[in-house]
Amino acid sequence: MLRPNKIEITEVGPRDGLQAESYFVPTKEKIAMINNLIDAGTPRIEFSSFVSPRAVPQLADVTDVLAGLNRSTDTILAALVPNARGAIRACEAGVDEIIVFMSASESHNLKNVNRTVDESLAGFYDVAKIAGDAGIPVQGVIATALGCPFEGNVPVEQLSYIAKQYRELGFIGLGLGDTTGMATPPVVQKAVRHLQDTVPELPIGLHFHNTRGIGLVNVLVGLDEGVAKYDASFGGMGGCPFAPKATGNICTEDLVYLMQELGIETGIDLTKLIDVAKYVERVMGRELPGQLMKAGPRLELHSMSDVATAAG
Amino acid sequence: MLRPNKIEITEVGPRDGLQAESYFVPTKEKIAMINNLIDAGTPRIEFSSFVSPRAVPQLADVTDVLAGLNRSTDTILAALVPNARGAIRACEAGVDEIIVFMSASESHNLKNVNRTVDESLAGFYDVAKIAGDAGIPVQGVIATALGCPFEGNVPVEQLSYIAKQYRELGFIGLGLGDTTGMATPPVVQKAVRHLQDTVPELPIGLHFHNTRGIGLVNVLVGLDEGVAKYDASFGGMGGCPFAPKATGNICTEDLVYLMQELGIETGIDLTKLIDVAKYVERVMGRELPGQLMKAGPRLELHSMSDVATAAG
Repeated sequence: MLRPNKIEITEVGPRDGLQAESYFVPTKEKIAMINNLIDAGTPRIEFSSFVSPRAVPQLADVTDVLAGLNRSTDTILAALVPNARGAIRACEAGVDEIIVFMSASESHNLKNVNRTVDESLAGFYDVAKIAGDAGIPVQGVIATALGCPFEGNVPVEQLSYIAKQYRELGFIGLGLGDTTGMATPPVVQKAVRHLQDTVPELPIGLHFHNTRGIGLVNVLVGLDEGVAKYDASFGGMGGCPFAPKATGNICTEDLVYLMQELGIETGIDLTKLIDVAKYVERVMGRELPGQLMKAGPRLELHSMSDVATAAG
Repeated sequence: MLRPNKIEITEVGPRDGLQAESYFVPTKEKIAMINNLIDAGTPRIEFSSFVSPRAVPQLADVTDVLAGLNRSTDTILAALVPNARGAIRACEAGVDEIIVFMSASESHNLKNVNRTVDESLAGFYDVAKIAGDAGIPVQGVIATALGCPFEGNVPVEQLSYIAKQYRELGFIGLGLGDTTGMATPPVVQKAVRHLQDTVPELPIGLHFHNTRGIGLVNVLVGLDEGVAKYDASFGGMGGCPFAPKATGNICTEDLVYLMQELGIETGIDLTKLIDVAKYVERVMGRELPGQLMKAGPRLELHSMSDVATAAG
C-alpha cells in the first residue's frame, strides 16, 4: 500500500506520560502544556483520563484541566474512560472524543482492569450508549495488541475478534497499543494487514513504545502499510512497567522530525513542539528521552569554532 | 533492491565509544570487552586507533590491547589510522584491517584533521603503499557523508569524487559516516544509490548515529537499498560533539535484535552481546543509552505477579 502523504498524530503525553509519574503535575502546568500543544498545531490530544482519582491520582484534575483548555481550534481533545461512570463524567465535561481500552490477552486484561476480555466488551456497550446519547464519538484501543508480556505473541484473530465488536459498537477508530514495546516489523505488518482485511471500516491508529529501541522503525513499517494515525508522547515520556529504565512512548518531536524529512505532513510546528518538550522537561525536573530536543533539527548549522570534533 | 538476508556488523564501541570518554578505560578491561565481543560472534571490530597518544590518550594502549586479543576466530580486528606513521605502527602490530577516514566537506575535514580533502587523499597514498606492502587490506571512511554540521547537505558528487579515489587506492570497502546524526531516509537513499551507480566495485558500509532518534530507521532504509554492512556501538556508546546530551552511535544490541526480528542473520549471539553491554556499563559506571539491555528481548515473558500495569 502507498505511504500516506499526511498523518494524524495524537499527543498522549498529558495522559500516558503524566500518569506514569509519581509527581502530581499542578493543574495549571498541565493546562499550559496542552494549550502549547494546541498552539503548535497538534491535531489530537489524549489530554487526560476519567478514571477513579484513587486509582490514578495524577489525573484527578481531569475536569479542571479540560475547563482550562483552548477550544477555539480544530484540535480534538480526547479522554480515556474505563467504564460507564467515567463516560458519564466525560460527557458532562464535554470532551470531543472518548477512548476506551482493553487488552488483547486475557491475562493482561485481568491484571490491568480485573476483567475478562468479554467482560470488558460487555462494559463498552454502556459506554457506547452514553456517548451515543451525548453525540460524542468513541475510539477503541486494544492494549498489548502486538505482544503480551505474559503470553507472548498475540494471535491476529484475537485482534479482529475485538475489532469486530468495536465496529458493532459504532466506534470510529481502532488503536493498537504496543503497551510493553514488543512490536516488531513483521508483527506490525501481519496485524495491520489482517485488520485491514477483516475490519476495513475501522481506521487503524498505532501506539508504539520505544522500549526496545525500534519504535520509529515500526512507524516506518506502519506507513508502508498505509496507516495514517500514530500516537506519541512529548519528550518520549511514559514508560513500560516491565522495563523500569527503558524509554516509554515514541517521542513526538522525533516522530514529527522524521515525518518532515520524509515529506509527510503532520500540521505540527516542530519548533513550537520542541519548546513544549523543553517546558515539560523543566516541569518534570529531569532529562527526558527525546533526542531531537537535545540535538535540534539537522539543518540548524554550527560555526566552525563550536566544538573540536573526532573521526567517525 | 532486495534486502540482504545476512549483514556484517562492525562493533565500533572500543574505538568510537571509548575515545569519547574522559575516563581512560584500563587496558585489561578493554581486552575483556573485546574478547567477549569476539566470543559473542562479532564478525568485525574497530578495536582501537593508531593515533597520537597525545591527541587521543584514551586509546594510547592500542598495541597492548591488540596483543591481548583472541586471534583464533574469524573476527576481523580493524584499527583506525590517521597517517603513514599510524599505518606503520598498525602493520607492525599486525592488525587484520586498516581504516582511514576523512570528511566529505572541506570545513569539517579542516576542523577535524587540519587538512583539505585533497591533502587527506594525498596522505592516503602513503598509507595504501605501507598497507599494501604488508598485505593488509584498507577500508576508507567518509565522515560527515550524510550531512555536515557546518555546511549542511553534502553533494553526492563529493562522495563519489572521494570514493573513486578510494577505489584507485585499492581500498576494499567504503564507509559512510553519519558523524553528527544528520542522516535521514531520503538522504541515505540518494547517497547509496549514487555510489552504487558510480562506484559499484566498493561495498558500502553505513555508520549511523542516533542523535536525532532515527538511527535504526536509517538502517531499514539502507537494507532496502541492499546495503549489508553496518557499524554500531555496544550500549549505544559514543557521542555527537554538537549535541552534548544526545545519544551517539546506534546501539549494537538494539540493531542485532531488530535484525533477528527481521530474519536477517548477523552471526552474533544476542544474549552474550547484552552481557557485554552490561559489562561495559559497569566499567563506565553510568547508564548507557541502549534499550534492549534494559528491556530484554520481546519474548522474555513475565509472570503475572511481576508489576501492576496501566492502560495504553
